[in-house]
Amino acid sequence: MADKQIDPALIADHNQNALADMLADYDALGAKLARQNVDIEQLTQKAVDFGVAIPSWGVGTGGTRFARFPGLGEPRNIYEKLADCAVIAQLSQATPTVSLHIPWDRPDDPAELRETAASWGLGIDAMNSNTFQDHDDMPLSFKYGSLSHTDEAVREQAIAHNIDCIEIGQKLGSKALTVWIGDGTNFPGQQSFTRSFERYLEAMKKVYAALPDDWRVFIEHKIYEPAFYSTVIQDWGSNYLAAKELGDKAQCLVDLGHHAPGVNIEMIVARLFQFGKLGGFHFNDSKYGDDDLDAGSINPYQLFLVFNELVDAELSNPSGFNPAYMLDQSHNVTDPIESLISSAVEVQRAYIQALLVDRAKLADYQDTNDVMMANRTLKSAYITDVSPILAMARHRAGGAIDPITTYRATGYRETVGKQRPARKGSGGGIV
Amino acid sequence: MADKQIDPALIADHNQNALADMLADYDALGAKLARQNVDIEQLTQKAVDFGVAIPSWGVGTGGTRFARFPGLGEPRNIYEKLADCAVIAQLSQATPTVSLHIPWDRPDDPAELRETAASWGLGIDAMNSNTFQDHDDMPLSFKYGSLSHTDEAVREQAIAHNIDCIEIGQKLGSKALTVWIGDGTNFPGQQSFTRSFERYLEAMKKVYAALPDDWRVFIEHKIYEPAFYSTVIQDWGSNYLAAKELGDKAQCLVDLGHHAPGVNIEMIVARLFQFGKLGGFHFNDSKYGDDDLDAGSINPYQLFLVFNELVDAELSNPSGFNPAYMLDQSHNVTDPIESLISSAVEVQRAYIQALLVDRAKLADYQDTNDVMMANRTLKSAYITDVSPILAMARHRAGGAIDPITTYRATGYRETVGKQRPARKGSGGGIV
Amino acid sequence: MADKQIDPALIADHNQNALADMLADYDALGAKLARQNVDIEQLTQKAVDFGVAIPSWGVGTGGTRFARFPGLGEPRNIYEKLADCAVIAQLSQATPTVSLHIPWDRPDDPAELRETAASWGLGIDAMNSNTFQDHDDMPLSFKYGSLSHTDEAVREQAIAHNIDCIEIGQKLGSKALTVWIGDGTNFPGQQSFTRSFERYLEAMKKVYAALPDDWRVFIEHKIYEPAFYSTVIQDWGSNYLAAKELGDKAQCLVDLGHHAPGVNIEMIVARLFQFGKLGGFHFNDSKYGDDDLDAGSINPYQLFLVFNELVDAELSNPSGFNPAYMLDQSHNVTDPIESLISSAVEVQRAYIQALLVDRAKLADYQDTNDVMMANRTLKSAYITDVSPILAMARHRAGGAIDPITTYRATGYRETVGKQRPARKGSGGGIV
Amino acid sequence: MADKQIDPALIADHNQNALADMLADYDALGAKLARQNVDIEQLTQKAVDFGVAIPSWGVGTGGTRFARFPGLGEPRNIYEKLADCAVIAQLSQATPTVSLHIPWDRPDDPAELRETAASWGLGIDAMNSNTFQDHDDMPLSFKYGSLSHTDEAVREQAIAHNIDCIEIGQKLGSKALTVWIGDGTNFPGQQSFTRSFERYLEAMKKVYAALPDDWRVFIEHKIYEPAFYSTVIQDWGSNYLAAKELGDKAQCLVDLGHHAPGVNIEMIVARLFQFGKLGGFHFNDSKYGDDDLDAGSINPYQLFLVFNELVDAELSNPSGFNPAYMLDQSHNVTDPIESLISSAVEVQRAYIQALLVDRAKLADYQDTNDVMMANRTLKSAYITDVSPILAMARHRAGGAIDPITTYRATGYRETVGKQRPARKGSGGGIV
Repeated sequence: MADKQIDPALIADHNQNALADMLADYDALGAKLARQNVDIEQLTQKAVDFGVAIPSWGVGTGGTRFARFPGLGEPRNIYEKLADCAVIAQLSQATPTVSLHIPWDRPDDPAELRETAASWGLGIDAMNSNTFQDHDDMPLSFKYGSLSHTDEAVREQAIAHNIDCIEIGQKLGSKALTVWIGDGTNFPGQQSFTRSFERYLEAMKKVYAALPDDWRVFIEHKIYEPAFYSTVIQDWGSNYLAAKELGDKAQCLVDLGHHAPGVNIEMIVARLFQFGKLGGFHFNDSKYGDDDLDAGSINPYQLFLVFNELVDAELSNPSGFNPAYMLDQSHNVTDPIESLISSAVEVQRAYIQALLVDRAKLADYQDTNDVMMANRTLKSAYITDVSPILAMARHRAGGAIDPITTYRATGYRETVGKQRPARKGSGGGIV
Repeated sequence: MADKQIDPALIADHNQNALADMLADYDALGAKLARQNVDIEQLTQKAVDFGVAIPSWGVGTGGTRFARFPGLGEPRNIYEKLADCAVIAQLSQATPTVSLHIPWDRPDDPAELRETAASWGLGIDAMNSNTFQDHDDMPLSFKYGSLSHTDEAVREQAIAHNIDCIEIGQKLGSKALTVWIGDGTNFPGQQSFTRSFERYLEAMKKVYAALPDDWRVFIEHKIYEPAFYSTVIQDWGSNYLAAKELGDKAQCLVDLGHHAPGVNIEMIVARLFQFGKLGGFHFNDSKYGDDDLDAGSINPYQLFLVFNELVDAELSNPSGFNPAYMLDQSHNVTDPIESLISSAVEVQRAYIQALLVDRAKLADYQDTNDVMMANRTLKSAYITDVSPILAMARHRAGGAIDPITTYRATGYRETVGKQRPARKGSGGGIV
Repeated sequence: MADKQIDPALIADHNQNALADMLADYDALGAKLARQNVDIEQLTQKAVDFGVAIPSWGVGTGGTRFARFPGLGEPRNIYEKLADCAVIAQLSQATPTVSLHIPWDRPDDPAELRETAASWGLGIDAMNSNTFQDHDDMPLSFKYGSLSHTDEAVREQAIAHNIDCIEIGQKLGSKALTVWIGDGTNFPGQQSFTRSFERYLEAMKKVYAALPDDWRVFIEHKIYEPAFYSTVIQDWGSNYLAAKELGDKAQCLVDLGHHAPGVNIEMIVARLFQFGKLGGFHFNDSKYGDDDLDAGSINPYQLFLVFNELVDAELSNPSGFNPAYMLDQSHNVTDPIESLISSAVEVQRAYIQALLVDRAKLADYQDTNDVMMANRTLKSAYITDVSPILAMARHRAGGAIDPITTYRATGYRETVGKQRPARKGSGGGIV
Repeated sequence: MADKQIDPALIADHNQNALADMLADYDALGAKLARQNVDIEQLTQKAVDFGVAIPSWGVGTGGTRFARFPGLGEPRNIYEKLADCAVIAQLSQATPTVSLHIPWDRPDDPAELRETAASWGLGIDAMNSNTFQDHDDMPLSFKYGSLSHTDEAVREQAIAHNIDCIEIGQKLGSKALTVWIGDGTNFPGQQSFTRSFERYLEAMKKVYAALPDDWRVFIEHKIYEPAFYSTVIQDWGSNYLAAKELGDKAQCLVDLGHHAPGVNIEMIVARLFQFGKLGGFHFNDSKYGDDDLDAGSINPYQLFLVFNELVDAELSNPSGFNPAYMLDQSHNVTDPIESLISSAVEVQRAYIQALLVDRAKLADYQDTNDVMMANRTLKSAYITDVSPILAMARHRAGGAIDPITTYRATGYRETVGKQRPARKGSGGGIV
């Protein structure tokens, strides 16, 4: 039985106040959906079953290269991060797992950490290695690269770190390693594109060889930043080639903010799934570059279109469908707990809306090139306000009908604000 | 022996006027290069040997969806197009072949066309199929797609057209088919990304099966236009997957204007070559989208960086290196002959500059992460004004030292202006 | 009393079938809104009062520079265009006016045209001049520019054309001239940026001088296309400067597809209104460039955010608020009538959603930097499905509850398909 | 008489080794230019007279939000920064002034600082205020904005800081204040665009009022970062409006990396000059966003085109031409001294190339719409290798013919590496 960060009675009280309105909206929506032969209860169960991982570093306040403005009561270690994640999970009932970053979250006692997480009902999601920063306990610098570095010793250091992450993860119950490297160049000519990629593949093969049988490795691509001229794994093309070279346990991870302007990301999702390499997602939103804004806050229709592909993939090939979902955001001006709750709900919303798409009709319209009706079939699902379904799912699972308002009523932030002194600077695992 | 469009005596006269200055510049450059242990004569021979194909449609005046403003004396058929191409080839000595587009250039008598071309010293480059427009002699419309269309009959029509192009090309001495399709969608939901790609692959396999043993097929990707939401072969990732599925004779073609903003194209060149799929190029330049401006007119350093990869590829694996080079531009406000001459020279310039890169030093700087010197090694080659080498190569081969000025002196445009009445509208093979 | 293109009884029949469901949804929404102290009836009245102009050229099938695939029964002249617009207006009850383009829509008898339009209940919106194409009846070409051309005679021709548009518009009851020019360059150095702008301003002053007292002139900016290196009125900065130089009757027009990637368009709306220069909109949607897709089809949240600014502007300064709204789309793969109906509804949807924003609360959250709640205040309005309000507004005004389905039931397209033979090519006023 | 950081004898030695080759190249170039009626000596004098300011923060190693990898011997205070700037100035002879950032460079004794700078021959350029970070000695946070903050007390704090910068600058001999604020939002709805701009203008009027008569204030715009949804001074349009509202001493500053993808920056330069608001530049280069790479390292032709406008402006209206030039780069993987020397040379190169443009011919080609020759007139200047002019200018002024090689020979970096211990983290004035 899970411990509770928030007194369930407080949640129940707040839910009680919101219940009548929620039920009215739920019933009205149920009636409307019934006319479309959609059973609202099935959707609600899907919402209950849905989960997206929280990145441990997401509960701290993020910043830019220009500044970081600390928030109140930021967590100072993995245990405090888990505590915050437990709040998010309890209120939203949509974030059952936490993804860790090494070295920021390196546990002294993995078994104890795993137990603590479990006591709050939290599982451990993918492990994230870090070779885009230097580590105090490593002799060599990653300034000029890590897994693709020209110096074999640096590559070996990066390989060893990734294997270390796997080993920690095994003790924590994780089943996946996510590898994102910042390797790349700031100047034309700085490195050979080809030799860099060859070195990367050679190094990743050693990491891959260390993967347990039931693990996967997720490779994450990104067009730029921190490298500003070229990046070794710059797009889904290079990502696919790497995953293909490595083997079946290697898959591609899509971060919504890691593409060039205008790129059709939902199409990349479809391609990767078609060729057996869709590993998972880092959800967030962006207007310019890798802005890491809250999921669905800038272009919610795009989020829906991504889930439209995911639902389509799941229905077309359920046995081959197992993507890992995680939020990956930088909360610079909001309370991270509020942003993560809100973002989890937005991701869940897109999923439920995508489930509403009448796929038989859609296929018919596509086959007959009835463009207008094909498009309206998607739009009709998207404009449906599924909030009552999301609220009901939370309510039934023990979460809050209105999670932000309930969170504010708990006084949690003020409480941890007293317990956790503010820190300055940008170190310590906040990206 | 080739016929001549321009009287060689006229060229010789003009060259005579420019010769002394050119020789002075050539000698000065030669002396400077000798100090770097570079033999200018070897570079000049490389320039003489270099060639880039002219697209037959490039000699007409292009336009936009808003308007086309006809030029004087536009060619009305493939013979007049070849005549213009012969002028370009004679003056620039850098464009030995012409790439044809079917149906625009369908010959009544292929043997005669081939002979005419040969009489001007012109070979026939890749054949280009066209399923992005409707054809008068085809019963079905490509409005909703061609090789990926939902209707098998439309796909078969598109397949047959491509095979037709191969057959014509065989008679003309071509050795390659370039397939660019406009297939895609303007609305989310209009088509299934996955089923469209499956249909495309199935259709292309039939085209591929019709390829003669010594032919290649080049697949061209493009992010958008004419489709504005999704495109079936939208980027090098999908292009690679298609070429991989098809077989060794299928390779990827890179058009410099077909990528999202900011995409590092030279890196894509390296990746495709590394994985055995670099087929060729459509050279042009652009600032916004597929602007099809003159090669090197907007970002000449990028053109150099592309050639830096090409030279690197050639030197690292000469036997695997055989890319097809073509100009692909839309000349809306210039005399197409002038733009094509000028663009061929700019492409040739980038090639010679790339040959100037001291690759042994570059590799050393890369291996030791001497970023500044690695970059300066490229920059030092790029800022070298190799114009005297290009001029000398033209001179020695029978071309014009100053080809634009010499072209203007021929009065060719005015002459064909009298022979070829102006036409309106945008039909007839001008894209 | 307006004539009817569609038999009102047919609409009434269809509405009858949809009425019970619509009323149920309307009542449920009304109850939900009432809890927020919002009167659904007031919103419905706002929807009834809302209107967006149809561009006459929008009822034809559009194309790209690569091809145009004609649709069935395309209108061949302004009268047939008006007939199609009347269908849109009758079914959607949201498009009371039509915007004309000269020379495409030049009437032989303006009074008769005005009367015909009025007989269908249609008014004449802004007049659009055209100096981005050559005209058969003009001696000089606009190939190298129009209002900014280096040759005074060409500028005078362009000025005269604009004045002609004003004069025709006066006879038709229009009150505004929209000036979009394609003037710009394809090559660095082609023109002087400064002298081009000076010539433009000088020419526009002459057009401005011909404006009747109760007219406005709308200047439209666009970053690129048809010019691909520079454009004279490239952005809102140049647009503002031009409008400021001209005088109070000159205002800026914002087309949603005419900006660089990532540009925050809603912010430009706010700036132009703040400085007294917001003239109006061309609504559409886009993913890459000026894709001219259906409004709200790619990024509906952006459309909402634009209307959020418009509603804010209207409420803050009602007397200074008078923007002209028009759809401006290219319908390449849909029935234009369906796309225009659908797009008008999407624009209306965004307007009603924006009216739902609780602006007093929003201002409080902004003043206290409660970022999360400020954002949720917008999002909460946006996710509300206001379809029942839009349907009720149509129903009450004599339109169709489900306008696309009703339209299809009329058989209008098949009928005009028999009356209007297909045409090829891209001429005749389709951009 | 200026003190010397580098022993002039060492420079002279190195120059002696390079002299013969340089003279040979200079003579060859002089002969070539003479044929074009260009006097190389006049260009060399222009190169000698040219200067671009160094930002004090540029001599430290920069980083990204992900990491900063410290360099050897980074300066720890303004005196050490000036020492590094003196090395750059001595070797390049192109960087006579240094631009300071407050609070990073706040001097205890301004008079002494000014004297120290002068002893190295360095002047003090524009002062830069900083309200995008919190300051230890200020009670209020800029987390939610500074000059546009909703709280008047925060705005007053920001105003006071700017006035403080002016007062320090007066003591240092500066004549300008540069104001760049990060104010903006990460979420739709976070702030009112209009009220934010009103507050900004109101605050800036107070700063403006504190400007001495002979000072200017430069306003810097930027599309995004650190704010990722909207920015108060997001583009040149808002920048112009602000400068216009403030008065004649307010001008706009253009940073090459602060625009949306594809924006024609050279055109903005022309517009700002035309309307009397071109204040100055922050030179750097970029491929994606505000990458702050070395000037000319990514798109050197763009840098040339910017200078083409600047030279054009200077020649057309010399009395109105007084832009302030500064480098503004982030050196993450190079020795900052090397990058700044190299970048200063690239900026100077673009200036000399732009002086080579035959403007009389260019104007003729423009007037007659001879697009090809107009473009070639620019290109012909650009492809000229003016390195010998730059080298000769340095040589004559006491700088190094090959400044990077000479710098490496001095052992300066190793020397300061011993004197200045490495520091971690990203604080302390490195952006």
